[in-house]
Amino acid sequence: MTDTTAILLEVFIIFAAAQAGGLAARRIHLPDVVGQIVIGCVVGPSLLGWVTPGEPLEVLSEIGVVLLLFSVGLETRLEDVKRVGGSAFAVGVIGVIIPFVCGTLWAHSIGPDWPRSLFVAAAFVATSAGITAAVLKQMGALRRTESRVILGAAVIDDILAMLLLGVVVAIQAGGSLRVGGLLAVAGEAVGFVLVVGWLGTLMMRRGSKWLEHTRNPLSPLLVVLVLCLGLAWIATRFGLAAIIGAFLAGMIASETRQRVQLEEQMQPLLALLTPFFFVLTGAKVDLAKLASGEALWLLLVATLLALVTKLAGGWLGALRLGPRSALIVGVGMIPRGEVGIVVAALGLSAGVFGDVLYAVIIAMSLLTSIIAPPFLALLLKRDTDALQDSTFATKDP
Amino acid sequence: MTDTTAILLEVFIIFAAAQAGGLAARRIHLPDVVGQIVIGCVVGPSLLGWVTPGEPLEVLSEIGVVLLLFSVGLETRLEDVKRVGGSAFAVGVIGVIIPFVCGTLWAHSIGPDWPRSLFVAAAFVATSAGITAAVLKQMGALRRTESRVILGAAVIDDILAMLLLGVVVAIQAGGSLRVGGLLAVAGEAVGFVLVVGWLGTLMMRRGSKWLEHTRNPLSPLLVVLVLCLGLAWIATRFGLAAIIGAFLAGMIASETRQRVQLEEQMQPLLALLTPFFFVLTGAKVDLAKLASGEALWLLLVATLLALVTKLAGGWLGALRLGPRSALIVGVGMIPRGEVGIVVAALGLSAGVFGDVLYAVIIAMSLLTSIIAPPFLALLLKRDTDALQDSTFATKDP
Repeated sequence: MTDTTAILLEVFIIFAAAQAGGLAARRIHLPDVVGQIVIGCVVGPSLLGWVTPGEPLEVLSEIGVVLLLFSVGLETRLEDVKRVGGSAFAVGVIGVIIPFVCGTLWAHSIGPDWPRSLFVAAAFVATSAGITAAVLKQMGALRRTESRVILGAAVIDDILAMLLLGVVVAIQAGGSLRVGGLLAVAGEAVGFVLVVGWLGTLMMRRGSKWLEHTRNPLSPLLVVLVLCLGLAWIATRFGLAAIIGAFLAGMIASETRQRVQLEEQMQPLLALLTPFFFVLTGAKVDLAKLASGEALWLLLVATLLALVTKLAGGWLGALRLGPRSALIVGVGMIPRGEVGIVVAALGLSAGVFGDVLYAVIIAMSLLTSIIAPPFLALLLKRDTDALQDSTFATKDP
Repeated sequence: MTDTTAILLEVFIIFAAAQAGGLAARRIHLPDVVGQIVIGCVVGPSLLGWVTPGEPLEVLSEIGVVLLLFSVGLETRLEDVKRVGGSAFAVGVIGVIIPFVCGTLWAHSIGPDWPRSLFVAAAFVATSAGITAAVLKQMGALRRTESRVILGAAVIDDILAMLLLGVVVAIQAGGSLRVGGLLAVAGEAVGFVLVVGWLGTLMMRRGSKWLEHTRNPLSPLLVVLVLCLGLAWIATRFGLAAIIGAFLAGMIASETRQRVQLEEQMQPLLALLTPFFFVLTGAKVDLAKLASGEALWLLLVATLLALVTKLAGGWLGALRLGPRSALIVGVGMIPRGEVGIVVAALGLSAGVFGDVLYAVIIAMSLLTSIIAPPFLALLLKRDTDALQDSTFATKDP
């Protein structure tokens, strides 16, 4: 009866396709998200055209990934993140430097001048925590040391990527690089994460008693969802991704006495909404733009570069955990997802690069998101099999 | 980082405002939805302007009301609806005829010619089940006979309203009224409801055993959500409201052995998404258009007319249940909500009536949605107090 009926059909298609894709992936021992991204590519504009990514669906996708990172935060205690702080920091920093330097050199070698090359390289930098988090969650591996390093590094990574994007946009625009201004912005972001993470958990730890006096079993959920949506938005005001705010909100909520109940109640929300994120991620691949030998070659090189540089950065940063754990961290940092897409969109609208390079960067971002999960799952599975009795292998209840 | 950040803020505002509105309403012993609709009016464009109803938010609202009616269906067994079929039919039919006839006479008395008056009257016809369902659910009254009559009548009501809208649009457009065509459309809609409701429940009753073999405790939920979204969309293809399809899907799902578990898992989904429906309903009131003596007078008369005619229709139709139950049914049928709004929008775009009459009809639809819930809650509460031992007063577990 309203405009929303057309959208209802797409909502149905996305949700049903996600279930089919997830089932199919599980059949061949791959994580659900791989199936959901691939089926998104199938139902998206490139192939069947049943689903058109656009604002209404983006909202569902955004809420889905926000809730996902919230629930990941819910299984992450501040104390545990602190314990791996050093490794996470090293992974975050080295995992940004290597891809950025190599990305710049590669981009310059294929044509663009230095300022433009720096811009292209920015797309190689930021890890998308959503996809790795979904795999870790499905494997019941969120309590592992490696998972904590990955999640901590993703936060640091996001701050550095934001800083870097500010720098390359300024250089590209030809304006003078105001180091002071950039440092202030970065300082605000760091301050936001530290203050919210630290003060928030402290306050919640002391103050969560009053949540017990509510008669409605849903009240604690409603309170933390307000917190989650609020911090997600505030994070964007500090130039960070919304999911960083949601992750912090989850970490704060994990200090409540209702944590187990909250985790339980989050499951239906994740089941309904996260498929929109993964299917739409796949739907954004524009296969037509890649249908030339040159583009495919560019894509192959870019994807390999993205894989190897991030893997190396993560591995080097996490080496103190042992080579095997470092490998898990490295693979977990590979997915670029939405951040690469955002950089590509900025670059296209600023005229920094053309249609083909745009399509290549988007496809590279998505390919990393499809390639990494199976390897991550394989590594985690082997490890769990081998170390069945070790505390590292503890599965979530 | 993307266009969705602006939307994230609105999502946060709507969700937080809904909690505040719900709490405030409960303080003064009103149902949550009243507080949510009123606060929607406050944060909407008319007053604070923090929230702008538009497509992205509409999707959330639509999914919210679809899930609400699904969960209402989940608490409704086909057998119980059959038992009250006669009363529901009478309520549906009489509850359409009286408002339509009186609405036409009133509209003609204030100016429009007969064809236009018929169009205006169509806005007085259809009951919006969403708001009443939310109140019945909050009061734990979904298992009462009156609730079943109301829900059954809402389905019949929707079919008749659709038929009527077809007629008035045809008359207004000056085209020849193709009775055969209209009857075919109506027949399809009736057929859809009967076939889906009957075959669906039958199949689910026999076939729900396989759902028990899934290891994932969320699998049954995923299956019925696919059914819910699918039937919601198909219902719109038959000219019915999406919520009718969702309600049928819920009735079908209520035949599974996982019914209790599904009801439990639906709670977080409803908690997150239904506020968008109620807050946006309130946000659509355009107070500025009503800021004249003439408009306010029109609104007063239209609202009274809408209240009295629907109350009378519902009461007469349900009289065989006894006068008190008939009163509950009558009050439960009062809210017009989104259907009146759809008719008004059609009328405005077809040039059938001007800005003021449009604003009046929208405000009337919303006023009925705000006025009815407190009375319904009061009647149900009194009844529960008085008949504490009666089977009628059985509260949901």
